[in-house]
Amino acid sequence: MKNIVDIEALCKIQYGMYVVSASADNLHNGQIVTTVMQVTNQPNQVMVCLSKETLTHELVEKSKSFGVSLLEQSTPFKFIGRFGFRSGKTFTKFSDDIDYVIGTNGNPLLRTHALINIEVSVNKTLDVGTHTIFVGEVKYANTVKEGIALTYEYYHTVLKGKSPENAPTFQIKEQKCS
Amino acid sequence: MKNIVDIEALCKIQYGMYVVSASADNLHNGQIVTTVMQVTNQPNQVMVCLSKETLTHELVEKSKSFGVSLLEQSTPFKFIGRFGFRSGKTFTKFSDDIDYVIGTNGNPLLRTHALINIEVSVNKTLDVGTHTIFVGEVKYANTVKEGIALTYEYYHTVLKGKSPENAPTFQIKEQKCS
Repeated sequence: MKNIVDIEALCKIQYGMYVVSASADNLHNGQIVTTVMQVTNQPNQVMVCLSKETLTHELVEKSKSFGVSLLEQSTPFKFIGRFGFRSGKTFTKFSDDIDYVIGTNGNPLLRTHALINIEVSVNKTLDVGTHTIFVGEVKYANTVKEGIALTYEYYHTVLKGKSPENAPTFQIKEQKCS
Repeated sequence: MKNIVDIEALCKIQYGMYVVSASADNLHNGQIVTTVMQVTNQPNQVMVCLSKETLTHELVEKSKSFGVSLLEQSTPFKFIGRFGFRSGKTFTKFSDDIDYVIGTNGNPLLRTHALINIEVSVNKTLDVGTHTIFVGEVKYANTVKEGIALTYEYYHTVLKGKSPENAPTFQIKEQKCS
């Protein structure tokens, strides 16, 4: 076997698409991620992997907590763009025209285009280079509405959506997911 | 907002289904997991979260490497059962009746019912209690065949498949995913 790394193969790894949010210093922010998963069930622990460049990363580091909203398949591109391709450093993502609530742990949780809301209290981190993995106990989990989840595969192959440069699934130049 | 943790909400987190494999001391083993994701793209790093009780965990700890085979949607229940509900401690999973190859990094990689094969060289670990997160650089990634991936949602809602007790998605008694 040749020792190749075919990016197209990595693109087949399956993910949901989420807005991960956090709050600190009276500032709310959130960003689109694919990198949410449950890692243990005793206790229920969930992780997220975030780019160190993002404001959400900064807020999670400060607050030791994050919120998760799983997006529905019909989430408009414009909504994804708002949370996925603009930085909270120069733009207020959770403004009055967005339907959200503040969870009991302080994180903004989407009420529109979200199927579930989760809040996690971070107790462990792992530095993996450009990104940090944050792991913690689930403090809140609830269904917002029933529906079909937006998956990375659907976004990428059906909607032909792209990944921002600081996403783990982003690939440079000719290595891009087709 | 009430501070509830509704397991049904956690069940909506999206995953693919994979056989993660490893090899050490002339022993090959593998197990079904949902917990594979890419965590960075510079370099390409992939992680897996494994129960400490499993033989695969033991082999990954020894070899500092693991293989990933993403399962196709049509993977038979019997095949999933072989890798998901039996322990390699008492049963040879990679026997002659299974079509697999040994990758350049030494891990058994499935050729049947697999869409992609990946090999990862582990460089970081995080102890998260009952499980360990293993992170490492992708040394090999290739497409075995085109097709539709088996997702946890499809397995759980369409095939009515269960999770073994040491899976992060397993929930006790009345907390079970419906």
